[in-house]
Amino acid sequence: MASAPVSFLLLFITTVLLPSSSSSPTSQPSDVFPSNKPPRFLGKHSHPIKPNHQQYRYETRFFSQPLDHFSFLDLPRFRQRYLINTEHWVGPSRSGPIFLYCGNEGDIEWFAVNTGFVWDIAPRFGAMILFPEHRYYGESMPFGSREEAYRNATTLSYLTAEQALADFAVLITDLKKNLSAQGCPVVLFGGSYGGMLAAWMRLKYPHIAVGALASSAPILQFEDIVPPETFYNIVSNSFKRESSSCFDTIKKSWSALTSEGRKEDGLRQLSKTFRLCRKLKSVQALADWLDSAYSYLAMVNYPYPSNFLMPLPGHPIKELCRKIDGSPEDSSILERIFNGVSVYYNYTGEVECFQLDDDPHGMDGWNWQACTEMVMPMSSDRNTSMFPAYDWDYSAFREGCRMDFQVTPRPKWITTEFGGHDIGHVLKFFGSNIIFSNGLLDPWSGGSVLENISETIIALVTEEGAHHIDLRSSTMEDPDWLVEQRATEIRVIQGWLDNYHRKMKATFNM
Amino acid sequence: MASAPVSFLLLFITTVLLPSSSSSPTSQPSDVFPSNKPPRFLGKHSHPIKPNHQQYRYETRFFSQPLDHFSFLDLPRFRQRYLINTEHWVGPSRSGPIFLYCGNEGDIEWFAVNTGFVWDIAPRFGAMILFPEHRYYGESMPFGSREEAYRNATTLSYLTAEQALADFAVLITDLKKNLSAQGCPVVLFGGSYGGMLAAWMRLKYPHIAVGALASSAPILQFEDIVPPETFYNIVSNSFKRESSSCFDTIKKSWSALTSEGRKEDGLRQLSKTFRLCRKLKSVQALADWLDSAYSYLAMVNYPYPSNFLMPLPGHPIKELCRKIDGSPEDSSILERIFNGVSVYYNYTGEVECFQLDDDPHGMDGWNWQACTEMVMPMSSDRNTSMFPAYDWDYSAFREGCRMDFQVTPRPKWITTEFGGHDIGHVLKFFGSNIIFSNGLLDPWSGGSVLENISETIIALVTEEGAHHIDLRSSTMEDPDWLVEQRATEIRVIQGWLDNYHRKMKATFNM
Repeated sequence: MASAPVSFLLLFITTVLLPSSSSSPTSQPSDVFPSNKPPRFLGKHSHPIKPNHQQYRYETRFFSQPLDHFSFLDLPRFRQRYLINTEHWVGPSRSGPIFLYCGNEGDIEWFAVNTGFVWDIAPRFGAMILFPEHRYYGESMPFGSREEAYRNATTLSYLTAEQALADFAVLITDLKKNLSAQGCPVVLFGGSYGGMLAAWMRLKYPHIAVGALASSAPILQFEDIVPPETFYNIVSNSFKRESSSCFDTIKKSWSALTSEGRKEDGLRQLSKTFRLCRKLKSVQALADWLDSAYSYLAMVNYPYPSNFLMPLPGHPIKELCRKIDGSPEDSSILERIFNGVSVYYNYTGEVECFQLDDDPHGMDGWNWQACTEMVMPMSSDRNTSMFPAYDWDYSAFREGCRMDFQVTPRPKWITTEFGGHDIGHVLKFFGSNIIFSNGLLDPWSGGSVLENISETIIALVTEEGAHHIDLRSSTMEDPDWLVEQRATEIRVIQGWLDNYHRKMKATFNM
Repeated sequence: MASAPVSFLLLFITTVLLPSSSSSPTSQPSDVFPSNKPPRFLGKHSHPIKPNHQQYRYETRFFSQPLDHFSFLDLPRFRQRYLINTEHWVGPSRSGPIFLYCGNEGDIEWFAVNTGFVWDIAPRFGAMILFPEHRYYGESMPFGSREEAYRNATTLSYLTAEQALADFAVLITDLKKNLSAQGCPVVLFGGSYGGMLAAWMRLKYPHIAVGALASSAPILQFEDIVPPETFYNIVSNSFKRESSSCFDTIKKSWSALTSEGRKEDGLRQLSKTFRLCRKLKSVQALADWLDSAYSYLAMVNYPYPSNFLMPLPGHPIKELCRKIDGSPEDSSILERIFNGVSVYYNYTGEVECFQLDDDPHGMDGWNWQACTEMVMPMSSDRNTSMFPAYDWDYSAFREGCRMDFQVTPRPKWITTEFGGHDIGHVLKFFGSNIIFSNGLLDPWSGGSVLENISETIIALVTEEGAHHIDLRSSTMEDPDWLVEQRATEIRVIQGWLDNYHRKMKATFNM
């Protein structure tokens, strides 16, 4: 079974919150605050996994791109990797469509093998499949190597969404020309940040793509468009709806954690309780590790067992709460918490001890993007959230970015460049052919588009869906609502293509 | 009477043709080819003229802009100048509109005082007037001075349309916030290159502006969208329809010019015939001077006398042809030509001798833009054009740009970034609220949108109109069709604003 692209997502969550542990928490009763860095195990697991070539066959190619599309500096070009499959493509003579997945922040092979939906439906559309990689990820490295590309703020400065969109635009334009396929319509796909790219690309490059399926794309998670508490409230509600005592235990655990950590020998005791391989260096590192588990579980809270970076049961939050609530009566809060998160970190029971990431920020691509344009304010409400209370503090965030990357964020740039405020009015009579699909269990859904904007910019919302489950390959275990959701998406995409072909035909007959 | 912003236009024309006199003409019977550089007199005249503060009152302000919106390089910011008038603005409480003219390649004061239409209609709309200057022009110079900004390809590299649009977006977003005017709709205006910017801005930033009046905006004059002969054919037809013998005389004059120039003492004789102040250095310089006159006259071939950079009669092409055809019978071809172009260069009869620009390209802003992204292929058809035959030669063009600026053009970038191919289909169900206004006498009209694309992306075409005459201040001499055209524009803009207010009201009542 293909696994969903979740590595990014945790990077995503865990990065947007706070830039640096050094930021001063605002009146934290627990003295810890929401996670602020990507746990290492995710970093490890986001390395390309061996693609299942039985299921997904593609050719790997490279395309020479300008490093900066928006200036004429004499800069070295770089090689953008893309994966291509033409076996089902009906070709230019029949205006065969091109399905382009907007690569997000990771190795494109990993996204390719984890976006089964595109592969599943390509044959019925006679479509070419294209997975271009996002610059600065995987093998698409400027300056010849990852080391050089990530050397400093100067070399990283061209890692932006706008440049990535322009890469896609230049690549597909050139490719179509070389294949004499200028008349072939392009349909965009993307999940999470890739979904944001897909939606933005349809809005900014309507001449290049006829439509976009933007799954779990939190394009409104910027500035003041949605309340900063949204994300953690959704995570918290997912726990509360399973069990209010579970929610309460987690909510209380942060101060228990802090108290324990303050004791003499407390860090050693915590290391023991949580079976850490090495002695804990700070309580915050442990808090981050727990935060990651809860947030990640909320995203992949699917109704059936799944096998992502690690195997999980169906309804994993229900399972976690069962462990917390069902621990022996004399268990301490922290013991209960340990039993709970073991559902996430050790469902198979094979892990003997746990490795925490207690390093400061590395030169990570998404960290850079979060510190430049992808500034997503996040707070944790002291009443409604089960996480440590935290009020978004832009100054602290900015200082963290200056320290980590010697760069100053532009928190208003994304809404200036791509919009977001008042999106319903703006796009009601502007633009067309975008599906925003979201599952309400997904904490990112609160930052996405959940209502139809017009007849052709529509929202597909599923009550029980989590993070872009619709982009995964279909399985025998898919619930009915998921089967229906995908059928709707196929029907809408078919409508875009029918319209396109009708317009083209009308021209030729003129 | 206000004069129209024509300085740019000639730079425009004369620059897009050929990059350098060194380019080898392709089988030129006359050995000269269409003009390839901006005549100096235009350079001189495009310096800011004293604005008529009686008629147009504004405050001059400066806004700090990032030099590069699309990277996070640590670059010096620059001061963008903008002119603002709020005396008629009804303010945020009544959602008073903001009229934003997209400054083009020149001093913004000059555009402000030459775009009377915006000033004429602002009071009835209760609108604020805003004229932001285009970066690298006027006083909006990066690196502190024009000299530094234009030093080389590195300092010039941020002179692009995309950066200019982002400047406008960032400026207006900040300004609205400071005025608590986020709810005030922005309407864009622009003529010529400024019209291209206005149309592109509405397409790329629909969240920032509710609509755009793009006057004489040749957004299709790129790549292979329109035939490269279009421009010179329209110029030539404007002469032919006045007088076929006039057309023939001009068409024959190029080889006469070359023959004369080849003679011993020919350049001195030509200098005498054309009353030049200094001895001619090359026949090409004279050809360029003549080409400029014809192309410019075609643009400003207005039906009433006008006073631009120099005073002209109404129907100036008719006048020019009357001089050519009506020269004494024993006049040589070149004497007839001289009599003709004197209508343009010396209508008042005050000029004693003429200064030609025979310098190679300078570090001129539009030349840079034409050599980077604004690559507009131009040919001159040997049959239908009265200009020397010329087939667009991209290689020669590119070499000229490399020589002049040490930069390599990206001839496909504009259509990749902004589209253009198949625009009718692409925008039929995408985008809204753009007026493309054109006069068919304008040689640039052939590269613009001349048919309605949808109900809200419309073309206003006038048979007798020339280059963005609609943007000029109304006068007592305006013909009926011009009065009607402006009335339609006002009605359409009012419709955009009514729709906007209706949508806003619907929200508040919810």
